[in-house]
Amino acid sequence: MPISEKIRASMERSSWIRKMFEEGIERKAKFGPENVFDFSLGNPDLEPPSKALDVLVEVAKDTTPGQHAYMPNAGFSETRQAVADYLNTFNGSRFSSGDVIMTVGAGGGLNVIFKAILNPQDEVIIPSPYFVEYNSYLDNHQGVPKVVACHADFSLNLEAISEAVSEKTRAVLINSPHNPTGRVYRKEELAELSKLLDHHSAKLGKPIYLVSDEPYRKIIYDGIVVPSVFDAYRESIVVTSFSKDLSLPGERIGYIAVNPEIADKTLLVGGMVFCNRILGFVNAPALMQRAIRHLLEESVDISIYQRRRDIFCEGLEAAGYEFQKPEGAFYLFPRSPVADDAEFVRALQEENILTVPGTGFGGPGHFRIAYCVEDKVIEKALPGFKRVMDKYR
Amino acid sequence: MPISEKIRASMERSSWIRKMFEEGIERKAKFGPENVFDFSLGNPDLEPPSKALDVLVEVAKDTTPGQHAYMPNAGFSETRQAVADYLNTFNGSRFSSGDVIMTVGAGGGLNVIFKAILNPQDEVIIPSPYFVEYNSYLDNHQGVPKVVACHADFSLNLEAISEAVSEKTRAVLINSPHNPTGRVYRKEELAELSKLLDHHSAKLGKPIYLVSDEPYRKIIYDGIVVPSVFDAYRESIVVTSFSKDLSLPGERIGYIAVNPEIADKTLLVGGMVFCNRILGFVNAPALMQRAIRHLLEESVDISIYQRRRDIFCEGLEAAGYEFQKPEGAFYLFPRSPVADDAEFVRALQEENILTVPGTGFGGPGHFRIAYCVEDKVIEKALPGFKRVMDKYR
Repeated sequence: MPISEKIRASMERSSWIRKMFEEGIERKAKFGPENVFDFSLGNPDLEPPSKALDVLVEVAKDTTPGQHAYMPNAGFSETRQAVADYLNTFNGSRFSSGDVIMTVGAGGGLNVIFKAILNPQDEVIIPSPYFVEYNSYLDNHQGVPKVVACHADFSLNLEAISEAVSEKTRAVLINSPHNPTGRVYRKEELAELSKLLDHHSAKLGKPIYLVSDEPYRKIIYDGIVVPSVFDAYRESIVVTSFSKDLSLPGERIGYIAVNPEIADKTLLVGGMVFCNRILGFVNAPALMQRAIRHLLEESVDISIYQRRRDIFCEGLEAAGYEFQKPEGAFYLFPRSPVADDAEFVRALQEENILTVPGTGFGGPGHFRIAYCVEDKVIEKALPGFKRVMDKYR
Repeated sequence: MPISEKIRASMERSSWIRKMFEEGIERKAKFGPENVFDFSLGNPDLEPPSKALDVLVEVAKDTTPGQHAYMPNAGFSETRQAVADYLNTFNGSRFSSGDVIMTVGAGGGLNVIFKAILNPQDEVIIPSPYFVEYNSYLDNHQGVPKVVACHADFSLNLEAISEAVSEKTRAVLINSPHNPTGRVYRKEELAELSKLLDHHSAKLGKPIYLVSDEPYRKIIYDGIVVPSVFDAYRESIVVTSFSKDLSLPGERIGYIAVNPEIADKTLLVGGMVFCNRILGFVNAPALMQRAIRHLLEESVDISIYQRRRDIFCEGLEAAGYEFQKPEGAFYLFPRSPVADDAEFVRALQEENILTVPGTGFGGPGHFRIAYCVEDKVIEKALPGFKRVMDKYR
C-alpha cells in the first residue's frame, strides 16, 4: 500500500463533488460540453472584475526589491493593515494588523486555525448540512466533528447545538452565507448562539471558539445584510478568501481575522502564525497579498448571480421542486422527491444534468445545485429538471 | 490555553532561525541596518531574473478566461507537462505530466508527501545535520523522525542509516545540495544508499521511499553535478521549489515528481493529489503555475553566490575557522571553537553578526551562516568573525 490506510479510506468515500466533476468531464467528452449541464462545482464562471485584472498587472510590474521574498509568516504588514481597515468599516470592533493573518485561501486558513487550537480528540460542532471538506480539515489535526442538524429551513438548531456541547468541545464552526443551502444566519440567531456559548464556556471554564467561514459574505441577494460574528461573540475567528467574490479560487489567497478582544490573543495569533509556517504554507502568495490590498472593496457583479438564482428558483418551483430560496452564495439545496438522493442525482444525470447528492453534505434527501454557470445553461437544463421530477411525482 | 498543548510546546522550542531573524530586527532597529550582519535566514537577496519578472507581467496580462479559476488539484496540465519535459532533460527516466504535482512550495510538497504516505508512528530516517522544520512536517502527520548523524565531512553514514531501519521505516529523507552544510551527495553515495534501501525493502516486504528535497539543485559551484535520485533508485520522490533558484520564496510555488517507474503509481499520485486538496492547499497558486512553465531553465546568477562563498571561505579560513567548503546552496556550517554553539553564536551577536547555532539543525558544535547577502556585508563582517575566534583560541 503506497499510501496510508486512512488516506486510502478517505479517498474511497471522498468528495461527491469531485466525483460529479469527473462524471462531468466524461459526459462532456461524450455528448459535447454544450449538451451537459454541470451544476456540480462551486468554481465561479465569472471572470475577476476588470479592476482586479488591472491590479494584478500593476503589482506584477512593480519591481521594488524584495517583493517576491519571504515576509513575516503572517503576511505583509501593509496588507494586514489594509484588511484591518476594511474590517473596521463593517464591524463594531477596532481591528489592527496584528488581528489578521494572510492565508492560502480559506481552506488553508481553516487548517491553520484547527492545527493551532485543537488538542487530539477535541470536538468541533458543525451544523448540517455542511461543506464536508470540514471533516478532513478537522481530522488532519486529530479533531472530531460533532455534526448537528439544522432546522428544516436551515436555521441553527440552538437547542441541538447546546446538547452537543461536551467537555471536549473546542469550537463551533459556521458558514454564512452557507454552502450548500444559501442561508444567511440572522443577527438574532448569532446573538442566541453567543449567549449559549458564553454559558457553556463559563461552565467549562474555557472559551468555546466560534469559527465563521465567510467566503460568500459579499455574494448576497435582495439587500440582505450578513451580520458581524465579531459583534455577536468575543471568542470569534473569521476565515475567508477572495476565491468567490473576486473569482480567484485558483490563486489561493484569503485571511484569518480574530476578534480584537479575544482572550489570550498574542498566544492565539502567534500559534496560528506558527502553524501557517509548519504546515508548509509558510505564507500566503506574495503577489496576491500585494494585489488584494487594493481590492478589498471590490467584487464581481453579484446581480448576475441573483438573476441566475431567480431564473433557477422560478423554473424549479414551476417544475414542482421544494427548496429554500437562497439568500446568498450560489447554491440551491432542493429536496429530492425520493429519500435516496443519490438515486435522484443519477436520474438527473440521465438528462446530462450534474448535481451533487445532499448526502455528500450531511443533508440526505436533498441535492445541491451550484449555479455559478451561464444563464443559458440554467435555461436549457430546466426542462430536464421538470422531466425528472415528473417521473417521481 | 488558547492553543493546543503540542503547538505551545513546539513554539517554545521553535526554530532558532526565526529567533535570530527577530534578534536581527531588534539589532537593526538599535544599531542601524548597515551595522548588523545578518546571516540568519535563507531568504535570497538576489532579485528574480529579469526574464522571470517579465513573464510574471505577461501572464498577469493574459486575460484568457478561467486562468484564475480552480483547475485539477494537481495543477494545470500544461504546467505539469512542461515540468515533465524539463525533468526529461537531465534524468534517465521518461516523465509525463501524470508524474508531477504542482505544490505550494517545497514545504507544502513535503507535507503533502508525508500526509499521503505515513501511517501513525511510521518512521522517516533523516541524516543530520538537517533542516529542522522536517520534524514539524513529520509530526503534522504523526510521523516520527529517526535522525542519523552523517560523517564529519557530511557525507551519508550508510552503515548508520542501515542500522536505523526498522519495521516502521517508511522513507529516507535527504536534501541535496544540503541546508545547512552545502554538501552535494555523490552518485556513488546514492547508488550505495539505493542498494541498501532495496535490500531493506525486500526484507520488509514493502518499499522504503527515498524522498529528496532539492530546492538548491541549480545553486551549485565549481561545475559540480547533482546526480539524479530518480536514476539511482526506483522508489524515489523529488520535491522542490522555485524559491531559491528564481528568488521567489514568497510566491509559494514548487512541485513533487515521482519516479515514473515507482510501484503503485496511480494510487500514490492520487493520494498525494488528494492530500494537496484536503490539507487546504487545494492547488498551487494559478498565476505562478502559469509563470514557471516558461522559467524552468532559468535561474539567478549563481556565480554571485559562488563569489560570496569564496570571499567567506577565504576570510573564515584566515581567521582560523574549520569548515567544509560548500559545493552548493548558500550556507556554510563551520565548527564552533567551543562545544556550546549557542554560546559562540551569542559571542558573534556581540559583533552584530547573526548566525544560527548548529543545535538548531541537529548539528551541535557547529553554526550556520546563510550567505545570500551582499558581498559587502560579508566583507564588513569578517573582522568581527576573526575577533570572536581570537577570543576562543
